Amino acid sequence: MRSKLFVPGSRPELFAKAMASAADAVSFDLEDAVAAERKAEARACVAAMLDGLAPEHGKTVIVRVNPTDGRYFADDLAAIIRDGLDMVNIPKAETALQMRAVAAHLGEIEHARGIATPIRILANIETPRGLRLAAEIAAADPRIAGLQLGLGDLFEPHGIARTERETVRAIQLAMRLAAAEAGIPAYDGAFVNVGDPDGFRAEAAAARRLGYSGKSCIHPSQIALANDVFRPSAAEIAHARRVLAAAETQLAAGTGAFLLDGVMIDEPFIAQARAVIAQS
Amino acid sequence: MRSKLFVPGSRPELFAKAMASAADAVSFDLEDAVAAERKAEARACVAAMLDGLAPEHGKTVIVRVNPTDGRYFADDLAAIIRDGLDMVNIPKAETALQMRAVAAHLGEIEHARGIATPIRILANIETPRGLRLAAEIAAADPRIAGLQLGLGDLFEPHGIARTERETVRAIQLAMRLAAAEAGIPAYDGAFVNVGDPDGFRAEAAAARRLGYSGKSCIHPSQIALANDVFRPSAAEIAHARRVLAAAETQLAAGTGAFLLDGVMIDEPFIAQARAVIAQS
Amino acid sequence: MRSKLFVPGSRPELFAKAMASAADAVSFDLEDAVAAERKAEARACVAAMLDGLAPEHGKTVIVRVNPTDGRYFADDLAAIIRDGLDMVNIPKAETALQMRAVAAHLGEIEHARGIATPIRILANIETPRGLRLAAEIAAADPRIAGLQLGLGDLFEPHGIARTERETVRAIQLAMRLAAAEAGIPAYDGAFVNVGDPDGFRAEAAAARRLGYSGKSCIHPSQIALANDVFRPSAAEIAHARRVLAAAETQLAAGTGAFLLDGVMIDEPFIAQARAVIAQS
Repeated sequence: MRSKLFVPGSRPELFAKAMASAADAVSFDLEDAVAAERKAEARACVAAMLDGLAPEHGKTVIVRVNPTDGRYFADDLAAIIRDGLDMVNIPKAETALQMRAVAAHLGEIEHARGIATPIRILANIETPRGLRLAAEIAAADPRIAGLQLGLGDLFEPHGIARTERETVRAIQLAMRLAAAEAGIPAYDGAFVNVGDPDGFRAEAAAARRLGYSGKSCIHPSQIALANDVFRPSAAEIAHARRVLAAAETQLAAGTGAFLLDGVMIDEPFIAQARAVIAQS
Repeated sequence: MRSKLFVPGSRPELFAKAMASAADAVSFDLEDAVAAERKAEARACVAAMLDGLAPEHGKTVIVRVNPTDGRYFADDLAAIIRDGLDMVNIPKAETALQMRAVAAHLGEIEHARGIATPIRILANIETPRGLRLAAEIAAADPRIAGLQLGLGDLFEPHGIARTERETVRAIQLAMRLAAAEAGIPAYDGAFVNVGDPDGFRAEAAAARRLGYSGKSCIHPSQIALANDVFRPSAAEIAHARRVLAAAETQLAAGTGAFLLDGVMIDEPFIAQARAVIAQS
Repeated sequence: MRSKLFVPGSRPELFAKAMASAADAVSFDLEDAVAAERKAEARACVAAMLDGLAPEHGKTVIVRVNPTDGRYFADDLAAIIRDGLDMVNIPKAETALQMRAVAAHLGEIEHARGIATPIRILANIETPRGLRLAAEIAAADPRIAGLQLGLGDLFEPHGIARTERETVRAIQLAMRLAAAEAGIPAYDGAFVNVGDPDGFRAEAAAARRLGYSGKSCIHPSQIALANDVFRPSAAEIAHARRVLAAAETQLAAGTGAFLLDGVMIDEPFIAQARAVIAQS
């Protein structure tokens, strides 16, 4: 999921265009993009859309529900869980226990409805506690298929400026390490200034250098930017091929580590080269 | 407490001037600024000062006591606890258990002396363990009213240079997130080079961009700098007013999130705008 | 151990030169630098070298063994534990429990073989879990004599670029604070580009500003660089002497803190000055 397009659940007129876009994933939002008095309406719109999904649409279909401790959560899940929904996006993930409760809840609904493929969880890290406990959240349940960063919620209520590059990088790194520990992907959050493609690209590129797999898009114009940044470059693919070729020769000769262009290459470098080839 | 002036407890000749200064808070120090052989004398000076406080002086009155595991702590508390003392500043806070013991100790003395308003705790984060466990320290007891950063103690004994901007920012961010998790303010520590107002201002401004509420001052010349940096600017107040006005219109129209000057505004942004107006 | 030279255990022709080098420590590697089919051979080479060590060679002798949960670990320890081995370097340290198991294992072999001086453990922090739990790892057992950073293993499998200065610094800082909490030294890892002495020097200097004690060398040309960077400079020694002289005068006069060149000096600064003199 290099690109994940957010669509307000209360705007069904945008759904078809989103599903026809170049985004790898579409995330229908029932939370922050929908005002309180339109929650029920949005829920019904998203449910109807899920029922009418074309076969082989090729997208990862996600619904962001409302917070687990709020009054909308149970109704959100009841309305949307069905075959065809790939992931539930849980806002404000804060503890492993909370994630296990969500997983159990999903399991019950799936069992009652005869849904064969477990719906995965995308957990939003967007509070100080969630960030501190992100490694435990990521490892809480096998359904947890990724962590997604939410800088708006993490920073704004506490007066932390998003303009500081080093602050953003430190947070991105912390969440990335948590996801890496659990062996699941990390996704960068939204970039709010939709009129600044260079800013989007810079933030996405920084996330990619930290090993992120993709980024949220809140405007269709951001999709191509995300797809481009998170695709391995020709140079990266070529370098990975050289590392793997050299490794084959060297390991056959009984060498555990070797120099390539003056850089010592050993197992972790070889594993990363394999990952680049797999992605390309 | 945008500005908090430190005054050595052993220098009573400075007390009146400190209480007449523009500092939001005055912190009378019994710890590092007082040599071992003058601890008892300093304690008596501070106690006498507390007894003679003018009514409606308008300052937050703080005493920094000696470490909780040392030989001065119990005598420090016994000497200073009374009506008129707002906060006890605990150096080298390291665990939640330690903070709960301090809170219980304060409660006993208050009960014995018939003090009605619980004295609050300002916990200094100034050791590696304290920083690692800062979120638990901040949440340990309702008396804990703030975390305060101590870079001198944190860095010097371990040979960590304070000259590295990125090191200082990383530590400031870590403590800020811990305070934010508990919903209490974070205060930046002292800036030791009293002849460098630009350096003070830069460090204070960086702390403010991380959501800090104020900074320690070790010289009267630093007070105006701190008050200025931690006061919301006219531009910030104007922007916050625009966000709140737009939110009123948009939320009335049933929109959960909206664009303002090309930036997506939702609940966390609105909460931050409210906080700016409250501070101004 | 300002400089620690890595030598593949499967290359005995390099051993004598390594022991004759200017490195403070030599680390014979049985792990990543040795291919699977040569593990037994490397183990025998290293054991023979340990048996033939010259008296008073003046170096700290370290062997990096294979991972504790793998098929080589027990044989590695059985082959190498003897008088003359100073430290076992444990790759991929991840939990305190794992470290205590290693310590117990070492104790059993030492007891069986009548080895009087406990062999110390150098724990490699090179996975996300190891980094998260580094403070607990460092404090797990009194044998743990240092933490050593491994950025290759930490970054490469997760696609984290090592080219980002701020990422490297953040990781270095996190491990440094963990070691500091336990009161043990931190050692920076290898710099893989052996043809870039300026890059090595810059990374070593950054580590030193974070309070690191030394750095791994994977080529003899890096030894002099490491020894130079981690030696206190003449200016640092002179400054430390001035701090200690001023402290003696001021503390005799009953002052707990004082100004030196406009900077407030108190106990942590004095402790650091003493450490610099001790190192020089």
